[in-house]
Amino acid sequence: MSPVARSPAREPWPHRERRGVWRFERLLVDDRWERDVRVEVDAGGRVAALETTGTGPGCPRVAGWAVPGVPNVHSHAFQRALAGLAEGRGPDSFWSWREVMYAFLDRLTPDDVEAVAAQLYVEMLKAGFTCVGEFHYLHRAPGGAPYDDPAEMSRRILAAARTAGIGLVHMPAVYEAGGFGGEPLDGSQRRFRMDPEGAARLHETLAGDFSGPGERLAWALHSLRAVPRESLARIGELVGGQREAGGAGGVPVHIHVAEQEQEVRECIARRQARPVNWLLAHAPVHERWCLVHATHIDREEMAAVAGSGAVVGLCPTTEANLGDGLFPLGPFARAGGRFAIGTDSHVSRSPVEELRLLEYGRRLATRSRAGLGSGDGVLAGAGGALLAHAWADGSRALGWAGGEVKIGKRADVVVLEAGHPALAGRAGAAVLDSWVFSGSDNPVRDVMVGGEWVVRGGRHEREEAVARRFGEAVGNLRFP
Amino acid sequence: MSPVARSPAREPWPHRERRGVWRFERLLVDDRWERDVRVEVDAGGRVAALETTGTGPGCPRVAGWAVPGVPNVHSHAFQRALAGLAEGRGPDSFWSWREVMYAFLDRLTPDDVEAVAAQLYVEMLKAGFTCVGEFHYLHRAPGGAPYDDPAEMSRRILAAARTAGIGLVHMPAVYEAGGFGGEPLDGSQRRFRMDPEGAARLHETLAGDFSGPGERLAWALHSLRAVPRESLARIGELVGGQREAGGAGGVPVHIHVAEQEQEVRECIARRQARPVNWLLAHAPVHERWCLVHATHIDREEMAAVAGSGAVVGLCPTTEANLGDGLFPLGPFARAGGRFAIGTDSHVSRSPVEELRLLEYGRRLATRSRAGLGSGDGVLAGAGGALLAHAWADGSRALGWAGGEVKIGKRADVVVLEAGHPALAGRAGAAVLDSWVFSGSDNPVRDVMVGGEWVVRGGRHEREEAVARRFGEAVGNLRFP
Repeated sequence: MSPVARSPAREPWPHRERRGVWRFERLLVDDRWERDVRVEVDAGGRVAALETTGTGPGCPRVAGWAVPGVPNVHSHAFQRALAGLAEGRGPDSFWSWREVMYAFLDRLTPDDVEAVAAQLYVEMLKAGFTCVGEFHYLHRAPGGAPYDDPAEMSRRILAAARTAGIGLVHMPAVYEAGGFGGEPLDGSQRRFRMDPEGAARLHETLAGDFSGPGERLAWALHSLRAVPRESLARIGELVGGQREAGGAGGVPVHIHVAEQEQEVRECIARRQARPVNWLLAHAPVHERWCLVHATHIDREEMAAVAGSGAVVGLCPTTEANLGDGLFPLGPFARAGGRFAIGTDSHVSRSPVEELRLLEYGRRLATRSRAGLGSGDGVLAGAGGALLAHAWADGSRALGWAGGEVKIGKRADVVVLEAGHPALAGRAGAAVLDSWVFSGSDNPVRDVMVGGEWVVRGGRHEREEAVARRFGEAVGNLRFP
Repeated sequence: MSPVARSPAREPWPHRERRGVWRFERLLVDDRWERDVRVEVDAGGRVAALETTGTGPGCPRVAGWAVPGVPNVHSHAFQRALAGLAEGRGPDSFWSWREVMYAFLDRLTPDDVEAVAAQLYVEMLKAGFTCVGEFHYLHRAPGGAPYDDPAEMSRRILAAARTAGIGLVHMPAVYEAGGFGGEPLDGSQRRFRMDPEGAARLHETLAGDFSGPGERLAWALHSLRAVPRESLARIGELVGGQREAGGAGGVPVHIHVAEQEQEVRECIARRQARPVNWLLAHAPVHERWCLVHATHIDREEMAAVAGSGAVVGLCPTTEANLGDGLFPLGPFARAGGRFAIGTDSHVSRSPVEELRLLEYGRRLATRSRAGLGSGDGVLAGAGGALLAHAWADGSRALGWAGGEVKIGKRADVVVLEAGHPALAGRAGAAVLDSWVFSGSDNPVRDVMVGGEWVVRGGRHEREEAVARRFGEAVGNLRFP
């Protein structure tokens, strides 16, 4: 047992009453900056009332530019400990990076995972993310034995999310094979083993724990490599059953697909189809699906994905770091495709760094600055147009009642400091454009998740304790 | 006169004695982390003694990972006020961005420029840059009349650098024509007019002002578009004359070249050669030259530039933001080419964001992670290899005695916080790799420029006053 375990800071975040009333100096509503907006939050952390004229005594005023919190649709929390490692010399690839990642996995304990995830989630909040889709495949102990409590690792992720106060959509991933031919899992991969029935049992086990208003369970399939065809069908049945049993609006299903060219070649060789095409032909992909990466997608696949209503989960800094390639964002957006962002391996933990790199990839590929934006409102610029997708499509991909501050939606709000040098002199669309394109000095000052202020004045109340525990955990891991 | 002018904070930075002795807990020396290094700085801000064993009483200890300050080889300071603007909707290009920039120029006063530059330089220091090459072409008043003091704008840049305490290589740019055919300057461009004789006079006028140990003058040619062939020859004579008159090691000469495809097409049409080839054939390009951008360069040109010893000044975030294209870094580095980084239009003010994007562009273009690094030392990783170029080639491009902390070199030092979450648990090459690839939460804690601590504990002593003045200036500019 590592010494870290003796000082867990696992109290759930919201000790305080969620219910409250605030007056936002400027709040993004649709595509306008509304002034002096009175927002009332109910006990479940949702917006109960919103009016643009009221002030009222005893109603604290929130200065700055307030915008919806950004959903992060794709996270492997434990990889935060690896960020900046495996940037080795000489020949290197996605696959050699994966070897470093696996070697590191052989040492990672549940305490470590909790400490790393808590640090990550605090960093996400401070940067403007308010909920995270945790694509979780680290289910077992080193060697592949289950923990005494098979839900151990999932509970640690939940504990970390509560410590930080971030909204959590936890997705235990099905992972059964080491390749398209059903190859057995090799050494390090044995920690990932999970079949559809196991995932369904994990859902049942955890249902009671995921009791807070900002805690949900959803499904993940690691990839076409790791999930055999029969399992894909079985997961379809299980997800359908959950929906009939009362899952409001459908349960999200996430899958990695077409990230690497090698994967595309193998899929064509084994299954006579490109990965996205094969998936669309063999699974009921609909608007609750999130196709993560989808980097190597052709025009026909783009049109089909756009038509399905599924969201593409783009992770620009990770995809660049791993040399995956550039997703064809321009053509996909013009085809009406939905896309959101995730931080995946967490070389960045910032929504605006992800969006910036996404747009820069598009501009470099096309040698043009022609924007995605349209109209005359606050979302008309390139930054606003990208954020609009991250908010709306990200909320959809996670089955999250977020992405806008409206009656009935969650009170997930990020407040940008108006006087910050990144935003000084800005108004209208230029506020969001400057946040995205000039915001590497983070102007996020306050962050509310489901009615709770978790970041005030740029500080998270628990950041020192969480960072200390993270430092101890990564120190003990003794990296090469 | 704007109200800003009434409260200038133009005291030169170094009020204090530069001479001093410090003991660095860990200092990068060659490619090793040396422990407990005693560094003595002389009154000129240079390292007078360096020993790895001494401690000595009364010698303050500096905790953290200390590395050389990073040179920023390319800045247009006034553009900081525009960062995040001009990210418009619909069809857009480098040339439409330039229109927004020009319109904004029609309002900019010397007070504004000083306020904007001071803010920019403070931001640069806090991110790890310790000297800046200011490629200065905003010489005249709106409309094109000279200021009563033709050196007005240059003096404002110097004042801003002194306020911030950053090292400055000021390069008044020659700018005479609006195109390859010698077209006259149009409306906004009239503020830029400067011929070779004017630049030489400006050098003479300013020689006495650039008296501090961290203040130098050098040459800039705006571009092949803006500098006629005769002027190129005349500048060669003037630069040669300065060198004979005692310029130690040669005076740097910087030029924008081959940034945009349209520029390449025009150069071929007018001069029957690609821009880099034409420049190499018509100017004595040598190791004090810096070719800024050189984005559109072919194999033959790469070999010739590498052979000349000139440095390519890459500005990855600006080049991405403007959709310029990707410089072929891999082939150029393999040809032995020298490259350094600049922040140009200042959509980023961080050396690691520039290097990160530079490397990501390379990985995306090649769909590979094969690194530039080699060897087994601290510089072996991708982050260290990139920093090594920024330090050595950046110092060369600016004629700056920096890029390493050694006897006789400037005491320009950046200290990274060892306990920062971006660096926790890191050692060896992973420190620099994590700074570059995982350092969007800035771990820079202390920054010394020429023996002066200008940033302590992540704060610049003047940051509030400088930001206030910047906020007033951009507020008064009333952006669209």
